[in-house]
Amino acid sequence: MRAVDIIAAKRDGKELSREEIEFLIRGYLDGTVPDYQVAAWTMAVFFRGMNAAETAALTDVMLRSGRVIDLSPIPGPFVDKHSTGGVGDKTSLILAPLAAALGIRDPMMSGRALGHTGGTLDKLESIPGYRTALSVEEFRAILVKDGFAMTGQTREVVPADRLLYALRDVCSTVESIPLITASILAKKVAEGAEALVFDVKYGCGAFMKEAEQAKDLARSLVTTGQAMGKKIIALLTNMDEPLGNMVGNFLEVEESLDCLEGAGLPGTPGPGDLMEVSLELGARMAVLGGKAGDAAEGRVLCEDCIAGGKPRDLFLRNVKSQGGDPEKLLELRGRWRSPICGEIRVPPDPAGSAGYIQRIDAWQVGHAAVSLGVGRNRTEDQVSPTAGIRFHKKRGDPVKAGEPVMTLWSATEKGLAAALSRLEGAVTYGPAPPAPRTLILTEIQSEGSPEAAGPVPEGVR
Amino acid sequence: MRAVDIIAAKRDGKELSREEIEFLIRGYLDGTVPDYQVAAWTMAVFFRGMNAAETAALTDVMLRSGRVIDLSPIPGPFVDKHSTGGVGDKTSLILAPLAAALGIRDPMMSGRALGHTGGTLDKLESIPGYRTALSVEEFRAILVKDGFAMTGQTREVVPADRLLYALRDVCSTVESIPLITASILAKKVAEGAEALVFDVKYGCGAFMKEAEQAKDLARSLVTTGQAMGKKIIALLTNMDEPLGNMVGNFLEVEESLDCLEGAGLPGTPGPGDLMEVSLELGARMAVLGGKAGDAAEGRVLCEDCIAGGKPRDLFLRNVKSQGGDPEKLLELRGRWRSPICGEIRVPPDPAGSAGYIQRIDAWQVGHAAVSLGVGRNRTEDQVSPTAGIRFHKKRGDPVKAGEPVMTLWSATEKGLAAALSRLEGAVTYGPAPPAPRTLILTEIQSEGSPEAAGPVPEGVR
Repeated sequence: MRAVDIIAAKRDGKELSREEIEFLIRGYLDGTVPDYQVAAWTMAVFFRGMNAAETAALTDVMLRSGRVIDLSPIPGPFVDKHSTGGVGDKTSLILAPLAAALGIRDPMMSGRALGHTGGTLDKLESIPGYRTALSVEEFRAILVKDGFAMTGQTREVVPADRLLYALRDVCSTVESIPLITASILAKKVAEGAEALVFDVKYGCGAFMKEAEQAKDLARSLVTTGQAMGKKIIALLTNMDEPLGNMVGNFLEVEESLDCLEGAGLPGTPGPGDLMEVSLELGARMAVLGGKAGDAAEGRVLCEDCIAGGKPRDLFLRNVKSQGGDPEKLLELRGRWRSPICGEIRVPPDPAGSAGYIQRIDAWQVGHAAVSLGVGRNRTEDQVSPTAGIRFHKKRGDPVKAGEPVMTLWSATEKGLAAALSRLEGAVTYGPAPPAPRTLILTEIQSEGSPEAAGPVPEGVR
Repeated sequence: MRAVDIIAAKRDGKELSREEIEFLIRGYLDGTVPDYQVAAWTMAVFFRGMNAAETAALTDVMLRSGRVIDLSPIPGPFVDKHSTGGVGDKTSLILAPLAAALGIRDPMMSGRALGHTGGTLDKLESIPGYRTALSVEEFRAILVKDGFAMTGQTREVVPADRLLYALRDVCSTVESIPLITASILAKKVAEGAEALVFDVKYGCGAFMKEAEQAKDLARSLVTTGQAMGKKIIALLTNMDEPLGNMVGNFLEVEESLDCLEGAGLPGTPGPGDLMEVSLELGARMAVLGGKAGDAAEGRVLCEDCIAGGKPRDLFLRNVKSQGGDPEKLLELRGRWRSPICGEIRVPPDPAGSAGYIQRIDAWQVGHAAVSLGVGRNRTEDQVSPTAGIRFHKKRGDPVKAGEPVMTLWSATEKGLAAALSRLEGAVTYGPAPPAPRTLILTEIQSEGSPEAAGPVPEGVR
């Protein structure tokens, strides 16, 4: 077997065997296949795609490149949620304790902020004392005690992904659906999840700008996950606007706590969009965990569960389990902010008439947040716990000239200025309310559902 | 400027600027752009192609990566011929002295046999004493004295091509028309040619199997060459059958000498197909060198010139100039053969009727020749001067059962056996003569001609 022939076969649109994929990836890891051949291969995959069998084989080969965490001594069910990344997306902090309260165990391994999207680990670490670098033993123990545990990826899990992702990043082959699928699924399966709910985001603030691309990825995740023997549901959710009213690390912890206390529940003031997405994702976790017969039933279960207060208690218990100080968190709540503060207000309106916010561009908000100190441009950057943005108004809200739309907290004057200038153009106003927003576009799940995913068509990137 | 953005732009089908192409190629040469990024880029070029401006920019950047041979102190005109490679293709040995006899100088830098195709340098070196590794000074002196000189590429010419070609070879990105164009043209221009006739071969024994691919390459060579200020004509010639009646190193020198003595000229016995292609290429060299107004006039000039004997004399003079022994060559002619000999004969015919050769597969013949010792599978392999194949019958010839079709000479018993088993299946027989063969499909030249090449369409590979 020769790498050059495997590259040529993919280049010419042929299906690769599991052996060929294994030869390439294992060879890359052990140094017998050089990076330039793997680079050319990823570009051929970008153009030619991979079918369901190839994607499953790649995922499995990557999964087996490292340690697979064994949760079998712990009683399940194990259901995790994974989002493809957005702005203001803090559903993990709400869903992990919610699932635990429903009797589901969520072994959540998350990432850090990179680019314009936030990272669950950075948010949690804004809680004084909270540790996300757990050993596998600690992770297992907390998972048993609290029903969920929150940690970063260990270096032993899917080493092939770290290598391959770094190569794709510099070779412009990140945006390939089969490669993204294998990267995400290999890690999630290695981390012990039996069932997975994917929040595949589309829109200007998401990785995938178009709903069609996101749908292709969702189908690929569902089909490949099934081929690996996992139960998978994917929701396509909109990420044109930031989710919720807070963007920042400690700010998002606060907003999650608000939601766990019922804010945003139907008929309740608060971040309704954030709660809606959380409840719909939670409903699917309930279904996959065998706690509800269908999503409607799961949704009622989730609403009632949050209203009962158990998820909030589990969240605070987990803060303590992972080294944080729940008292301190509650004491800092609503007060702990970076010192340099600014505002975006509705501009003067010569006609003097009231208007409506048409749009708040999530992509711009995400990048403004990075300027404030919330995120990072390079993996080695430090983040600020207390920087961020609070929205007083969101899409569809009626506004008057001079009213505040956002408050900004920044670590530096320079960062504030950059964020303000970005955010001036991020808000669009108009005389009439905008068309209602579709928050959850569709659900993709395994066979039996009307939106059942077929095999991933060949040539899908 | 960042390589990752240049790769992404090409991946997305955008046109690259000269600066971007230069950044990538120069960076590759000086080590600031790593090979894996260049590998991914070549695969993106394979899929997206390059337009005429990009291809010209790449050619120019590659040309400038090394030494450009200055022939300006020598009076011209300088016209060279380049073939994309075939089986039994020895036209260079006929055309260089023919052009010189017409008053054109041919600065011919050639390659070695690799894969199933022969190499001009290996053929010339079968002449006892003949040296092809000339210094630039020797090359210039012989070019002045004999009107042509035959040498290998020096390592100082287009170093970027050696690097890039080696990378493409292991990354399955050889088959890209703009990359092939730049590779060929950069070398030819660096070698001092002002005008070039390309013999772009198509068919089973050629690099390009389909006429359409070959036409795309011919158009790209003509358009890009023009953009570099060179006069270019390309002929598309068929390579389904081996050219001429000899395949081998010394055997091909002999056949070239036969042709230079008039064998195969219209109305004369000998290798008519080889002479036909040589005359048509020679006619274009005469046109580009300003010796004939059109190809028809050039052709008459070439026929008369060969009949006059001057090209033969110049060939033998060059043998002497380059260290060879013309007396020895003439003495060995017709006799110097490898000791292990075999034959392919027409198989028994149960019906007892006469038949016709329908086809002799040039691809199989090329590979059989490698087994005999004519060519090489790896660049470090040694070739035999005296191994080879002589055809007694060719396509269209009437044959009877038991008649000899080919004689084989091999360096080893094992090589003979391998070649015989390959060649058994390479010849097809049938009861009626095959349809006439199109030897020269079309001519592509710069604007003004009916087959004028337009700009290379975007997306051509």
